[in-house]
Amino acid sequence: MSTTELLARRQRLLGVGTPLFYEEPVNIVRGDGVWLFDADGRRYLDMYNNVPCVGHAHPRVVEAMRVQAATLNVHSRYLHSGILDYAERLLNLHAAPLTRAVFACTGTEANEVALQMARTATGGRGIICTDAAYHGNSAEVAKLTRVGQAAKGDVRAIPFPQSYRPLREGVSSRDLTDLYLAEVQAAINGFAADGIPFAGMLVCPLLANEGLPDIPEGFMPQAAALVRQAGGLFIADEVQAGFGRTGRWWGYDVMEVEPDIATMGKPMGNGLPLSGVAARSDLVNTFREHVRYFNTFASSPLQAAVGMAVLDVIEQEDLLANVTEVGGYLRNELRGLQERYDPLADVRGHGLFIGLEWIGGATAKTPDREGAIQVVNRLKHKGFLMGHAGALGNVLKIRPPLVFKREHADSFLTAFDETMRELYGAG
Amino acid sequence: MSTTELLARRQRLLGVGTPLFYEEPVNIVRGDGVWLFDADGRRYLDMYNNVPCVGHAHPRVVEAMRVQAATLNVHSRYLHSGILDYAERLLNLHAAPLTRAVFACTGTEANEVALQMARTATGGRGIICTDAAYHGNSAEVAKLTRVGQAAKGDVRAIPFPQSYRPLREGVSSRDLTDLYLAEVQAAINGFAADGIPFAGMLVCPLLANEGLPDIPEGFMPQAAALVRQAGGLFIADEVQAGFGRTGRWWGYDVMEVEPDIATMGKPMGNGLPLSGVAARSDLVNTFREHVRYFNTFASSPLQAAVGMAVLDVIEQEDLLANVTEVGGYLRNELRGLQERYDPLADVRGHGLFIGLEWIGGATAKTPDREGAIQVVNRLKHKGFLMGHAGALGNVLKIRPPLVFKREHADSFLTAFDETMRELYGAG
Repeated sequence: MSTTELLARRQRLLGVGTPLFYEEPVNIVRGDGVWLFDADGRRYLDMYNNVPCVGHAHPRVVEAMRVQAATLNVHSRYLHSGILDYAERLLNLHAAPLTRAVFACTGTEANEVALQMARTATGGRGIICTDAAYHGNSAEVAKLTRVGQAAKGDVRAIPFPQSYRPLREGVSSRDLTDLYLAEVQAAINGFAADGIPFAGMLVCPLLANEGLPDIPEGFMPQAAALVRQAGGLFIADEVQAGFGRTGRWWGYDVMEVEPDIATMGKPMGNGLPLSGVAARSDLVNTFREHVRYFNTFASSPLQAAVGMAVLDVIEQEDLLANVTEVGGYLRNELRGLQERYDPLADVRGHGLFIGLEWIGGATAKTPDREGAIQVVNRLKHKGFLMGHAGALGNVLKIRPPLVFKREHADSFLTAFDETMRELYGAG
Repeated sequence: MSTTELLARRQRLLGVGTPLFYEEPVNIVRGDGVWLFDADGRRYLDMYNNVPCVGHAHPRVVEAMRVQAATLNVHSRYLHSGILDYAERLLNLHAAPLTRAVFACTGTEANEVALQMARTATGGRGIICTDAAYHGNSAEVAKLTRVGQAAKGDVRAIPFPQSYRPLREGVSSRDLTDLYLAEVQAAINGFAADGIPFAGMLVCPLLANEGLPDIPEGFMPQAAALVRQAGGLFIADEVQAGFGRTGRWWGYDVMEVEPDIATMGKPMGNGLPLSGVAARSDLVNTFREHVRYFNTFASSPLQAAVGMAVLDVIEQEDLLANVTEVGGYLRNELRGLQERYDPLADVRGHGLFIGLEWIGGATAKTPDREGAIQVVNRLKHKGFLMGHAGALGNVLKIRPPLVFKREHADSFLTAFDETMRELYGAG
């Protein structure tokens, strides 16, 4: 069946307007490590997918899934050591205060738990997020989606901290940090003024959906301090940032902040729906006491076995070191290209999570979303799958499986350079 | 590790107060068909679990999972025929007006989608549920959890329709239907009076959590008509009722009502997190147009392959016929026991979903929750796993995998009779 026919069939069965990538969508039928293959046997280097973090179809993960599914997969109202072994191992990877876990199936569900937990523990309602955030698709969590800076009941957004398009031009990095912290304090004060008791702040430590900006130094730990001072909790959404993406286990490690609650998702089960919350024991206990939370598919032996296999592979294949090395190399090489091509205005990120700011037009720093999209589609034709993201949609997002090696980076860099020459001349 | 040690470890890692079954929780380590095995090798007949609908560890489902996980498991922004094949097959099992599907991971997420869909399509907010409902654990869906009958913003509950403890005693079944329909109309009028535009009604067609009552005849289709007359949509929550549980594909088939939206979950993937919504095409299109819904783990090749295998087994093992036959037999035999034991006051249900109303005490129909719990725990000791549920917690719930056969029913009936004799004398 042709792509056109598949697309028509998809619209007929799933409705018009389901999200799809690329001007000509790809029909992917097989995955292996960092590679994806379409129905015509064409091979693509996967520069995008963070869910299959240890690589597509990793045999160890597949085998763990098979063995457990063939043995037992049942809800968590029976005792089972599997989920306890997994919880213990996972919590040992977290900051010391996070000693208890709640499991769920999706990042949305993890953030639902975190919000309920923060609100139950503090007795508050008010949540601070950023103005270009996305944390999930449920009605409650979606209240945090790109809310802009207008006050909105119990959710208030701050302008996301960044140095590329800073809140004020020409100030020092330290002053910029203070400016953004003042926004956090203003949001806290706004809740107080409106009689909305404060519950906390929920952010991705890397501000991934915002466009992976360089965050003014010290913002995260100081924001957390302000939040706690006001009686709130600091919640790190590690759904994208976690599980070695940055070369550290958690995005909050990179930002040097210890959260009260961390939420996890996407890469956690290498594609099996698996998510969770790690939190302070008092918070989990209060949550359990007040919210009769049960999630049928969560905390299951299957989730535990697959989640454990993912941790095994990350550790045994030394993927954190790989991420640091290859990510550093790739970022460095891209910065070389940045000097040659004006549209590539900024190379940012941590580990194997890289954002490329795309600009164009008459004035400096004019975001060029269409340019970014053009690059993405050209690279797709050359066999490289990536995406674009960010508050303005003009940030090329490089976020491959963690098993992405230097040779893959090189082959991408060659194609990327070629694309740039095609689009923007010699450089 | 002993049960006591496991429990202590669980509390340390997952918090105090995670839901657990039985006075002495069981440590289940293996499942096979209708059987569960604990760490001591003790075998239990599973009378409770609807998620592993085609049986624990069904080899065909496990193999489908393995093959797909070893081939490709990735998000749905690439084209893939697997999810289309599955959607088509699933929609063909539904009532004719339901022609499009949206997939998610949990029943909660499916009901989130349904609420957003109904509200987007109608422009309304007001949702009617019953006063003893449970439809999921997210903040928005949890607004429908056992809300009682007090008006609560945009969610209003009607007393759940039943003939065992009817709204008024001594009226004919037809009059009882009218009484409950008047409650639906009153809720609709209440929204109108409060200036809350109406969106629809969300119910499990079997009222499973309410206690699986005998529903006064014609209530569901007539309630749906009232809802539509007021511009609302009728949403059937098939998370428990669907996939052959009743001997028909959907609970709404049994109730002779066609919903505008049906939500599905639990048995859909035999334990793989998989849920979905089937709805009219105009509703899905409006939803897709207005809500930028994306669910990372949903509509995946893995969900499709496993969901398809479950449908294969249900059809090829002729499980609907098995459910009708064995369920009918079991209900009939239980009605025989009902005549001998006063506490067993009512035997209700459809197919392999049976509720046993437990009463005790001085006055007629006094619910005996403790008695029900005692029976559940005694039967656990005899090797039969069941649960209790219902608005008053006094309904024994029998809901085994669909591969439950007559020989299993017989062995349960023997143990059940024995338990009754032990607790209540000769009968």
